[in-house]
Amino acid sequence: MIIKGNFIWAPELDRLEVREHAWLVTEGERIVGLYGQLPPEYAGQPVEDWGEAILIPGFNDMHIHAPQFPNRGIGYDVRLLEWLETYTFPLESRYRDLDFARRVWKRFLNRLWAVGTLRFSAFATIHKQAAWVLMELTEQAGLRGLVGKVNMDRNAPDSLREETEQSLADTEELICRSRAELKHVGFILTPRFVPSTTERLMDGLGQLGEKYDLPVQSHLSENPSEVDWVRQLHPDIPTYTQVYDTYGLLRRDKTIMAHGIYLSPGEKDILREKGVLLAHCPFSNSNVSSGIMPLRRDLEEGLRCCVASDVAGGHTAAMNRSVAGAAALSKLNWLSHPEQRHLKVTEAFHLATRASGAFFGKVGCFEPGFDFDALVLTPDPMDSLLERTPVERLEQFLYDGDDRHIAARYCGGARVERPFAL
Amino acid sequence: MIIKGNFIWAPELDRLEVREHAWLVTEGERIVGLYGQLPPEYAGQPVEDWGEAILIPGFNDMHIHAPQFPNRGIGYDVRLLEWLETYTFPLESRYRDLDFARRVWKRFLNRLWAVGTLRFSAFATIHKQAAWVLMELTEQAGLRGLVGKVNMDRNAPDSLREETEQSLADTEELICRSRAELKHVGFILTPRFVPSTTERLMDGLGQLGEKYDLPVQSHLSENPSEVDWVRQLHPDIPTYTQVYDTYGLLRRDKTIMAHGIYLSPGEKDILREKGVLLAHCPFSNSNVSSGIMPLRRDLEEGLRCCVASDVAGGHTAAMNRSVAGAAALSKLNWLSHPEQRHLKVTEAFHLATRASGAFFGKVGCFEPGFDFDALVLTPDPMDSLLERTPVERLEQFLYDGDDRHIAARYCGGARVERPFAL
Repeated sequence: MIIKGNFIWAPELDRLEVREHAWLVTEGERIVGLYGQLPPEYAGQPVEDWGEAILIPGFNDMHIHAPQFPNRGIGYDVRLLEWLETYTFPLESRYRDLDFARRVWKRFLNRLWAVGTLRFSAFATIHKQAAWVLMELTEQAGLRGLVGKVNMDRNAPDSLREETEQSLADTEELICRSRAELKHVGFILTPRFVPSTTERLMDGLGQLGEKYDLPVQSHLSENPSEVDWVRQLHPDIPTYTQVYDTYGLLRRDKTIMAHGIYLSPGEKDILREKGVLLAHCPFSNSNVSSGIMPLRRDLEEGLRCCVASDVAGGHTAAMNRSVAGAAALSKLNWLSHPEQRHLKVTEAFHLATRASGAFFGKVGCFEPGFDFDALVLTPDPMDSLLERTPVERLEQFLYDGDDRHIAARYCGGARVERPFAL
Repeated sequence: MIIKGNFIWAPELDRLEVREHAWLVTEGERIVGLYGQLPPEYAGQPVEDWGEAILIPGFNDMHIHAPQFPNRGIGYDVRLLEWLETYTFPLESRYRDLDFARRVWKRFLNRLWAVGTLRFSAFATIHKQAAWVLMELTEQAGLRGLVGKVNMDRNAPDSLREETEQSLADTEELICRSRAELKHVGFILTPRFVPSTTERLMDGLGQLGEKYDLPVQSHLSENPSEVDWVRQLHPDIPTYTQVYDTYGLLRRDKTIMAHGIYLSPGEKDILREKGVLLAHCPFSNSNVSSGIMPLRRDLEEGLRCCVASDVAGGHTAAMNRSVAGAAALSKLNWLSHPEQRHLKVTEAFHLATRASGAFFGKVGCFEPGFDFDALVLTPDPMDSLLERTPVERLEQFLYDGDDRHIAARYCGGARVERPFAL
């Protein structure tokens, strides 16, 4: 495939690459090269010419709750634990109904496709069948990523509290089935968070992680009451981070922890050493009044961080808006912590494309050997009135663009069309 | 006109009214009544039945820069004064070209219509002709509100610095012309802010305000450097607020001041006494790192406040998003100032509908005697899967809705269609 356009990507936090009127050549899933002049060996082959449009890497959303998708924007005037009880758990308990689940999943995946989230790591619910259907539909949609059946065997309403051994058995069944039947969607171990998983369950999940060499996702240190609660539940373990570590749930370079707002220096040492990816969720953090993660400081201290939507603590699946929201939150943090320079919006863009894409391998850059994932952004009608640089057009899309500004999506080297007719 | 639907409005900060399956009757521009059963005298008359849709008052955006509309989202990684120099002034200088202005204004008004901003108070530029065309096009569009030609005669680039007497003469010409020719769009005195207006200009504008009994809009105390600058420019006047007051520019119950983040208690006394409306602009305040206005405290201290977009310091004209942004910013403020309860999103909704509408009179409620302004919000497709209260549907629209969720708009008793074909 040969694609012509204006390419922008952010290979490093503080580096943006721009190639105007360039030719990108792919073979299968991967990029062969990006050229200012089309190399002679490709002459005469068909070219997809996107004209003045800009192409950016697809978004990778590393923390999103698929079952909460219908709850976007609802009930945010309480804080985390009350919000879970009042809004989240009642909705999640409905996913034992597979027909309901299937209808939500299709809308969810259509929406991710629309807003340019081509890869993701999603929480499903405790329900094995519903999680399986989400995995299958994601593969059918042509999107990629990880899906986890949630594990919860304590501090949950009856309708969502699992029997420990059954939870482990259901998890193992999904691990094996997805390995056998799916190509582009993998299973990720998904203990909800420490307060809702017993020691036996965490231990069993840690063993499954070891046995199948699996990635893990969970929540860490989102809210002060949650942190206190974990301390009460595990008085013998000094920190929240160490609870996960004790049970083998910080798997090296394979673990995503959402939030991480209230971390001690010792916890950061462990997270850095294990290569844990912290998913910063700016909208969720303000919506349920969790707090502001010291993102710049964490990055300077060598932690791996990315930007994620956290639907439905976050109110939108649109990652461009989460990127702009991360820059905004970082500026507000800077006002009260002037020693922590705020993030530029293009740095937040790196965190939602390449920093997150690295969890999947060579994803998130327009460089040889990388998977070809891209969004084609159409020019704003104002662009005919004003001269705009590609970077200005990227900034405008990040702040005020929506799915109508995305003309096409490519994932793993193939164009992806709207997945489901509803 | 008889309209059936589910009506929600916020007559007071802490009061939300909901009437499901109700009939609203209008006569001319105004609401006659809202009834649970259609009164017998209206039987047999045609009814616009919006079924399960909810109707909310239109948004009133009390601080928006029309000429900056093309700059949404661009260049936010600097602070206010540098942003003005680098991005805003070069764009504003282009509006001496009337053809350019007309093309931007049409896109601007189409967008306000799309996102449900039916009334507004807008800054134009210094250019008399361009400001006039914006007034004319607003009237043609069927939208309502106030437009001001900006006055600037110091600390501006050459292309935007006016000669003082000419600035006053141009202003008076527009005042008279708009009174003679327009019905629903008025003129508002618009000194940009203290640093760009000389004492002679402010004095002249104050006199025009008195002569024609005009409303006034400007900026106040947005950024610490700006506040320092005003202090240096006017060493004999104790505060920023008092500079405006000295020149007659705080006209009782007729003045909008954007921002007001860094106000002293004495300034608040003056603003309260004069009934000045403070336009809180959450996105702008975070985008250019201005700070967080203590909105709850200001409201409790009896200041009049509303929520506004401040395009293009704000990145979107969509007022539903500014409402959600105001709630988010208030929560972040609450985390560091626990004595200041955060605003609920429905309180922010009041600030963008009724609190702002009051500047125009009886606007922003579905009550007898009020102008009939309304947005019809279509149900989310998820609503067929889940039972949603009208308030939950309102919350979802505020957080994650866009113009595609607005099925119809009514302003001043009449349905308004998309204003301009482009």
